[in-house]
Amino acid sequence: MSELSLSQILKYHLGGKIAIRLTKKLKTQKDLAKAYTPGVAQICKIIAEDPQKMWEYTSKKNTVAVISDGSAVLGLGDIGAKPSFPVMEGKAVLFKAFAGVDAWPVIIDLPKQDNGKTDVEKCISVIKAISSSYGGINLEDIAAPGCFEIEKRLDRELDIPVFHDDQWGTAIITLAALKNYLLLTNKKAENIKIVINGAGAAGIRIADMFKTQKIGQIILCDSKGTLNNDRQDLNEHKKRHSLKIEEKTLKAAIQGADVFIGVSKADILTADMLLSMNYLPAIFAMANPIPEIMPEKAKTIMQNRPYVMATGRSDYPNQINNVLGFPYIFRGALNVRASTITINMKLAAAEALAQLAREAEVPEIVKKAYKKEFFFGKDYLIPTPFDPRINQFVSDAVSNAALKDQVANLDPKILANINGAAKKAGINPKIFLSF
Amino acid sequence: MSELSLSQILKYHLGGKIAIRLTKKLKTQKDLAKAYTPGVAQICKIIAEDPQKMWEYTSKKNTVAVISDGSAVLGLGDIGAKPSFPVMEGKAVLFKAFAGVDAWPVIIDLPKQDNGKTDVEKCISVIKAISSSYGGINLEDIAAPGCFEIEKRLDRELDIPVFHDDQWGTAIITLAALKNYLLLTNKKAENIKIVINGAGAAGIRIADMFKTQKIGQIILCDSKGTLNNDRQDLNEHKKRHSLKIEEKTLKAAIQGADVFIGVSKADILTADMLLSMNYLPAIFAMANPIPEIMPEKAKTIMQNRPYVMATGRSDYPNQINNVLGFPYIFRGALNVRASTITINMKLAAAEALAQLAREAEVPEIVKKAYKKEFFFGKDYLIPTPFDPRINQFVSDAVSNAALKDQVANLDPKILANINGAAKKAGINPKIFLSF
Repeated sequence: MSELSLSQILKYHLGGKIAIRLTKKLKTQKDLAKAYTPGVAQICKIIAEDPQKMWEYTSKKNTVAVISDGSAVLGLGDIGAKPSFPVMEGKAVLFKAFAGVDAWPVIIDLPKQDNGKTDVEKCISVIKAISSSYGGINLEDIAAPGCFEIEKRLDRELDIPVFHDDQWGTAIITLAALKNYLLLTNKKAENIKIVINGAGAAGIRIADMFKTQKIGQIILCDSKGTLNNDRQDLNEHKKRHSLKIEEKTLKAAIQGADVFIGVSKADILTADMLLSMNYLPAIFAMANPIPEIMPEKAKTIMQNRPYVMATGRSDYPNQINNVLGFPYIFRGALNVRASTITINMKLAAAEALAQLAREAEVPEIVKKAYKKEFFFGKDYLIPTPFDPRINQFVSDAVSNAALKDQVANLDPKILANINGAAKKAGINPKIFLSF
Repeated sequence: MSELSLSQILKYHLGGKIAIRLTKKLKTQKDLAKAYTPGVAQICKIIAEDPQKMWEYTSKKNTVAVISDGSAVLGLGDIGAKPSFPVMEGKAVLFKAFAGVDAWPVIIDLPKQDNGKTDVEKCISVIKAISSSYGGINLEDIAAPGCFEIEKRLDRELDIPVFHDDQWGTAIITLAALKNYLLLTNKKAENIKIVINGAGAAGIRIADMFKTQKIGQIILCDSKGTLNNDRQDLNEHKKRHSLKIEEKTLKAAIQGADVFIGVSKADILTADMLLSMNYLPAIFAMANPIPEIMPEKAKTIMQNRPYVMATGRSDYPNQINNVLGFPYIFRGALNVRASTITINMKLAAAEALAQLAREAEVPEIVKKAYKKEFFFGKDYLIPTPFDPRINQFVSDAVSNAALKDQVANLDPKILANINGAAKKAGINPKIFLSF
C-alpha cells in the first residue's frame, strides 16, 4: 500500500463514508401519511401485538450495529471511542459493499474505571438497551479479556446474533487457510504442531476453533512465553489453553512446529525460529500493519526450502482478512433470522471459504482483477476479497448451519414460500436464500 | 386519509423504509485499503489528536439519532420501545426526504420501574454513552414529565444539539400559525387571550414559546381543569404556568378567548364553548388522529361567524405538522455544527415559517401540487410540507440564529471559506450555508 498517500485517504473519508437511502418514495401527502402519521400507527399496533413483526415491517430485518468502545483498535490500541469511529464506519461500508447488510456504527463512550478499563457491566447494559433496534450486533475492537464477557453475556441475553469479529473473524479465516494448507501439503491434522503467538481475543479463539479439528498439538504463547501449567498469572481463557509442557519460550515452542500463527507484533520471528520448524511449514504472520516477519525476510531465510506464508496485508498473497467473514456471516444469519451465531455456523463459514479457494472455475472477473489464471495453491489458500462468489457460498453455508442447529427464527411460512418459489424457479433453495 | 388502505400501509413498510448508501466507491483493493485498514488508521490518529475532526472525517457531520423509549407514541400512548420503532424509522425517512439529514432510529428498551415509568437516569446514561456517534439527537415520543428532565440533562451534558420534538416541534409550528393569525385578524398579541388544553410535553412548550410573544393571557388546562394557584397537584412545569384565576374549568376559561390550542383529545370542544369565544377566534384542534372538534362540526356550529381553524391532519387546511420543523431545525444546526438548539433558534424557525407562508410568490410546483393559486390566508397560515422553499428558508434562519447566539462550532476557517466561496459565486452566504 505504499502508493496510498495521506491526501488520498483524507479525501476518501471527508464528509463520511455512509448515508441513508430511502427504500420507498416520499413524494406526496399520501406517501407522508403512509410513512408517518396516521398510517404508521397501524404498523405500531401490529408490532405491539407481536414484536417479531419488527423483522417484517422495519429496517431491523437487514440491519447490524457495528459497536466499539475503542479499547483495542487495529494496531493502535486503546485510543478511545471517538477515534475508533472511522473504523466502525469503514466496517459498515464493507458490510454494505460485500453483502448488502445495512450496518450502522455506534461507539460506546463511557468513562473508564479506575484501572483504566471499560466497565464491562455498563457496556453490556448500554448495548442491551439499544439492541432491539438491530437485527444483529457486530462487536469490534474491544479489548480482551472484557470482550469475552461482553460477547458471552449479550449473546446469551439477547435474541439477536452477537459476534465479536476480533475474536471470531480472524479465527474463521485462519481456519480456512489452515484447512487448505493441510490439503496442499498432505499433512494430517492429528500429526501437526501449531504455535499461536498472541493470546488476546484472536489468539484464544483461533485456538478454540482449531481444537474442533483434532490438531496434534496447539501451543499458545503470550508476551511472557508459552501458556504452561507452571504459570500462575493466567486468566480463565488462557488457562483453558495452557499445557503441561517443558517449553517455556516461543523459541522453544516453535521447534519442530508445522504452523506458526502470529496475532502478536511486528518482527518477532527470527531466522533461528523459522529454520527450526518442521519441513514445509506454514507461517501465518498476521500482525498489522507490520507482520511478525516480513515476507521478503522470510524468503531470504528459507532460501530453497518450501514453505507457505500468509499475512494480514493486501499487498502480499494469502491475505487473512476478516472481510472474508463478517459480511457473509451476518448475511447468512439475517437471511434466516438466526438468534445467535453457533460454532457450527462459524465452522461452516470456514469450510465454505476453504472450498471456494479450491474451486477450479474462477470467474473471469476475478482472473482479470488479479491478472492471473491459476489460483488455488500455496499463494492462494483463501479467496480474495473481491471474488463475487463469496457472498453466495459463505452466507448460504451459514444460513444452512443455522437451520440445522435450529437457531433460525424464520417464520416457517416464509421458509416454505422461499422453498416453494425456489423450486418453481428451478433454483436450489439453499442458493435462493441469500437474496 | 380515508383512501389509505391497510394493505397500502403494510406494503409501504414491508422490509423497512431505510437502508445504507455508500458515499464513496468500494471497487478495488486500493479502495478497501483507504476505507478500512491500513488507511483508516490515519483518520483514527487525526481524531485521537482532535476529537472535533469527527465532524470532518466521519458521517457524524450529517447524522441525527431518532431516539425513543416508546412511552408516549402518537395517539397510542405507552406502547413500549419495539412497537414505536416504525415511527422512529418514519421520522428518519422525513429527515432524509425533506432536509437531507441522515437520521437513524434507535429505541431504548429498558425495563420499566415499579411505577411503570421509564428510569430517567438509566435512559440518560444510555443515550449519553452512544451520543458521540451522532451530530444531533432527536428525542421522540417520550412521556412527560420524564421527557423534560431527559432533554434538559442531555442538552446540558452533551456537546451536540438535543431536541425533543414532541415538546418543541408542535410549539414552533403552532407559534408560526399564531403569528399569521394575528396578522390576518389584525389582533394585537398583548390583547388576546389564549387557552391551551393539554399540559403535557407539547402544551407546556407551546405556553413557553407563546410567552416570548407578550401575549395578553395564556391559560393552560389539563384533564382536571385550568392550571390555577388553588391546585396542589401540579408538577414543576405545570406550576410555572399556573395562574391566580377564578376559572376552574376549560368551559369557563374559553369564554372570551381568542385562541384555543388543543393538544389533548378527541371531541372535547362543545358548541357552547365555541360560541362563547371572542370574535374571529382561532381553533387549533391538534389532537391526533381525531381533533378536539372536527372541522365540519365547527363549521356547522359557527355558521356565518368568521373563524380560523387548524388541525394536525393532512386532509384539512392548516396542518400543524411537525415535519415543517424538525428536519430543517437539525439541518440548520448541523450546517453550523451547533452545540445546542437555543430558544432563539426555535423562534427563528417559527418566524421563517410564518414569513414563508406570507410570500406572495408561491412556486409553480407548489401551486400545481395543491391545485390552487392563492395561498396565504385563513386556510394557509403555514406552508404545506412539500413546499420546496422550506429547507432553504428555515434551515438558514436556524443557522443564523445559532451563529448569533454563539453556539455554532463551525471552524472559523470553514465559515470564512463558505462566505468567500459564496461571495465569489455571487450568492448570499446565508443561503449558501444550507448546501
